[in-house]
Amino acid sequence: MNCIFCQIASGAIPSAILHKDESAVAFRDIHPQAPVHIVIIPVKHFTNLTELKGIDYDVVAHIFEVANDLARKEGIAESGYRIAVNSGKEGGQVVQHLHFHLLGGRQLSGELG
Amino acid sequence: MNCIFCQIASGAIPSAILHKDESAVAFRDIHPQAPVHIVIIPVKHFTNLTELKGIDYDVVAHIFEVANDLARKEGIAESGYRIAVNSGKEGGQVVQHLHFHLLGGRQLSGELG
Repeated sequence: MNCIFCQIASGAIPSAILHKDESAVAFRDIHPQAPVHIVIIPVKHFTNLTELKGIDYDVVAHIFEVANDLARKEGIAESGYRIAVNSGKEGGQVVQHLHFHLLGGRQLSGELG
Repeated sequence: MNCIFCQIASGAIPSAILHKDESAVAFRDIHPQAPVHIVIIPVKHFTNLTELKGIDYDVVAHIFEVANDLARKEGIAESGYRIAVNSGKEGGQVVQHLHFHLLGGRQLSGELG
């Protein structure tokens, strides 16, 4: 198990965890692109979006609920925020464990990539 | 009902619909930022992410399943793609009906906004 996000989820790599439950973990991006930049991952390892099947999609719903709760806690729910997922090389995915970016705290560009 | 996305979902405004079922509708963005740029919306009107509660999140899971299917049909599942949701002003949301952007077909920037 040499996936860095699996190691963060298991606690093998210490991180400033903002949220943790049986299916999702959230922590701050180490290269933040905005005043608020949080990464939310499923505990279960999926390389990217293309691996999701059937009930796997439930974790996406849960991650959006976690993201919305975090947006409220971070004070960006009303000002506005973006949730983005990169899947695969041309999507700009860097870490090969499915993850969702929550960004806010400034006016984000209309450019989506 | 003067929401343009509600009118697209109902068929009141004719559009090139790529997918339609009882809970989600997909169509091409009229100002595409990439060779593939599809908008996927819930049929039910939510202004943005902050309005989702409880079972509403099921539609997010469904929209991701629709997006993944469309990515396969558009030939970008393996090359890579991004799914992004803007919620509120600083998130860059333009149309006030919750919608998800699916982008791909070129190398997307690592800048998420």
